[in-house]
Amino acid sequence: MKTLISIAVLMGTAVLSLPAAAQFAKAEDAIEYRQGAFRVMAHHFSRLGAMANGKAPYNAAVAAADGDVLAVVSKLPQAGFVAGSDKGKTRALPDIWKEEAKFKDLYEKMVAETAKVATAAKSGSLDQLKASFGPAAQSCKACHDEYRAK
Amino acid sequence: MKTLISIAVLMGTAVLSLPAAAQFAKAEDAIEYRQGAFRVMAHHFSRLGAMANGKAPYNAAVAAADGDVLAVVSKLPQAGFVAGSDKGKTRALPDIWKEEAKFKDLYEKMVAETAKVATAAKSGSLDQLKASFGPAAQSCKACHDEYRAK
Repeated sequence: MKTLISIAVLMGTAVLSLPAAAQFAKAEDAIEYRQGAFRVMAHHFSRLGAMANGKAPYNAAVAAADGDVLAVVSKLPQAGFVAGSDKGKTRALPDIWKEEAKFKDLYEKMVAETAKVATAAKSGSLDQLKASFGPAAQSCKACHDEYRAK
Repeated sequence: MKTLISIAVLMGTAVLSLPAAAQFAKAEDAIEYRQGAFRVMAHHFSRLGAMANGKAPYNAAVAAADGDVLAVVSKLPQAGFVAGSDKGKTRALPDIWKEEAKFKDLYEKMVAETAKVATAAKSGSLDQLKASFGPAAQSCKACHDEYRAK
């Protein structure tokens, strides 16, 4: 049984790390998927930012709910950056596919920083939310500066 | 302290049930948000459907990951159906805002059925996934038939 579970885990890992292209019928689908996920992420992240920056009243319950969504959704767009999806209705720059390791690093930095925002958002502490927000916003900007058309 | 927490909870509830319009600067943002969330949901739901229907090999780890995303994302689009967002780049029909109670019922039915899919997807049982998928797909279709332009 233990062996079976190990095999299942290994297979799971293998499939999850297959070229993401396998997940989408065509490049356009991948573009729409990543844009959809970024759109959702931006909404919840912006709402947390408004609280962090005093532009909206702090509400612990709303912040916690936004944090929950952010933690899940921030991981999703990466799978949409499949080979061939630099063309079409996208602002993603071709360098993403030329500098995959660097793009991956920046992406993972963003996931790590937004995870800290999610934790802070669920802490009930506005001070923690404020402290976490800046580095996360910077991690978004770092990638946009390099890899998103102006 | 107990009173403070109660007030916080009450405020949280109040804000969460405010007209969702307050969350979006303009109707277009609400439309893009709900479409983005639906796009992400459709991707993960379709992948589970492919496994349930034998069109893709069943992989318990992938199914569980899809189920996790589905459980979170299925709840999101509802907030994007704000007043005035029946116009613009959307297939949402005006009846949504004329029959709000009925739309809400259909929406909540979908959330309940996709929650069952998410649970089944995390059970490690393909049979459970198969059993849950049909009713969930039907709950999507029920709303599309009534409230989405063909």
